[in-house]
Amino acid sequence: MPNPTAAMLVIGDEILSGRTRDTNTQHLASQLGQVGIRLREVRVVPDDPAAIIAAVNALRSAYDNVFTSGGIGPTHDDITADAIADAFGVAIAIRADAFALLAAHYARTGMAFNAARQRMARIPAGARLIDNPISTAPGFSLGNVHVMAGVPDIFAAMVASVLPGLTGGAPLLSQSLRVNRGEGEIATAFAALAAQYPALAMGSYPFVENGAYGTHLVVRGAVAAQIDAAMTRLAALFPDPAA
Amino acid sequence: MPNPTAAMLVIGDEILSGRTRDTNTQHLASQLGQVGIRLREVRVVPDDPAAIIAAVNALRSAYDNVFTSGGIGPTHDDITADAIADAFGVAIAIRADAFALLAAHYARTGMAFNAARQRMARIPAGARLIDNPISTAPGFSLGNVHVMAGVPDIFAAMVASVLPGLTGGAPLLSQSLRVNRGEGEIATAFAALAAQYPALAMGSYPFVENGAYGTHLVVRGAVAAQIDAAMTRLAALFPDPAA
Repeated sequence: MPNPTAAMLVIGDEILSGRTRDTNTQHLASQLGQVGIRLREVRVVPDDPAAIIAAVNALRSAYDNVFTSGGIGPTHDDITADAIADAFGVAIAIRADAFALLAAHYARTGMAFNAARQRMARIPAGARLIDNPISTAPGFSLGNVHVMAGVPDIFAAMVASVLPGLTGGAPLLSQSLRVNRGEGEIATAFAALAAQYPALAMGSYPFVENGAYGTHLVVRGAVAAQIDAAMTRLAALFPDPAA
Repeated sequence: MPNPTAAMLVIGDEILSGRTRDTNTQHLASQLGQVGIRLREVRVVPDDPAAIIAAVNALRSAYDNVFTSGGIGPTHDDITADAIADAFGVAIAIRADAFALLAAHYARTGMAFNAARQRMARIPAGARLIDNPISTAPGFSLGNVHVMAGVPDIFAAMVASVLPGLTGGAPLLSQSLRVNRGEGEIATAFAALAAQYPALAMGSYPFVENGAYGTHLVVRGAVAAQIDAAMTRLAALFPDPAA
């Protein structure tokens, strides 16, 4: 059975301007790999309703799961919840359970539960709330789209809240071999070996260290014994001359 | 006149698996901002011809410039040049000038110029070469698509080779103010100010430091005097209580 698929949608002008480096994608990729969901596409779009709506609708019809990050806070540039509601053609309004969570949180911390903060209780109709153990303001899942905060700690906590409820598959396993030779020297033999293991994905990632070329060879797949067999062959093909 | 636009297409299973964190996007975003080209979308796709072709064709028709990273090395998983040729419907073959550059490079370094390395001279018909001062193997531009290596140092060198030939616009300027208050406390006043400066983009980015909430307020635009004026207003709205 093929593995379930996923896409990530990063929402935020701050990523596109270069101000902030997105780290949420790598976290999600790694977590999805462990539960056997294959991340197949990532998109980054600006804080623009039309761009968010177009991307959400393209991705939710193409993949089993879509994860979004960013734009669900209390300020005027937080427009993700409204855009998701528009993408699904559903209403959005303050929801009582989300409002109660936030009211209790601000009562506990002594901070004002003002209009801006109350905005974070606006949830599209039909969504399930995603628990936010860090700062309370919930994310939500609507259909196969999981809408989460952009702040990395909160994003990670929400991913942990969502993943147990999803259908996974065989985890993506990988092993790698470091070879102190350039890609161009190992390419032919590596390609020949890769052709013998059609169920595995083999990639090579060059690096330069102290002025010398080297390559990381990575073998990915779902069956550990296949990967072990391929790694044994790889190690025999490219013995480390320094060993 | 509106600024020219751009999209980035990151090609690589290693990003989607979480093995590698993409850093090229942030570099490109920052460089484009300086020459007044607006990065409007980023996509990450796997080493899969159909996915690359679909993304390239969607992006090149939607934006003035498309930059790709990854997949132009000598190994079997380096399929970007072929996918770009297919996306444009043009032939791809070893090109004499690229071949000569590589032949001279390998003669100089004493490394074998074997079949795998010769593959890096395969260039789609009609493309212009992009200079690679680091490891010689060139990138190329075809129409409005600029195809570059994924290794960060080489990617950056190729961006530097390409940018002077592109039409830019007013650089994107930005200033930011750090406020030691949570987003929810400043949201209403911040939104009211933003509404008075429709030519500027104002964003807020929350953080937690030593257990206390704070917010970076960022003002972006093309006219320095407008940004200065908005920053003066912002500083008056949110004076630092610790100052």
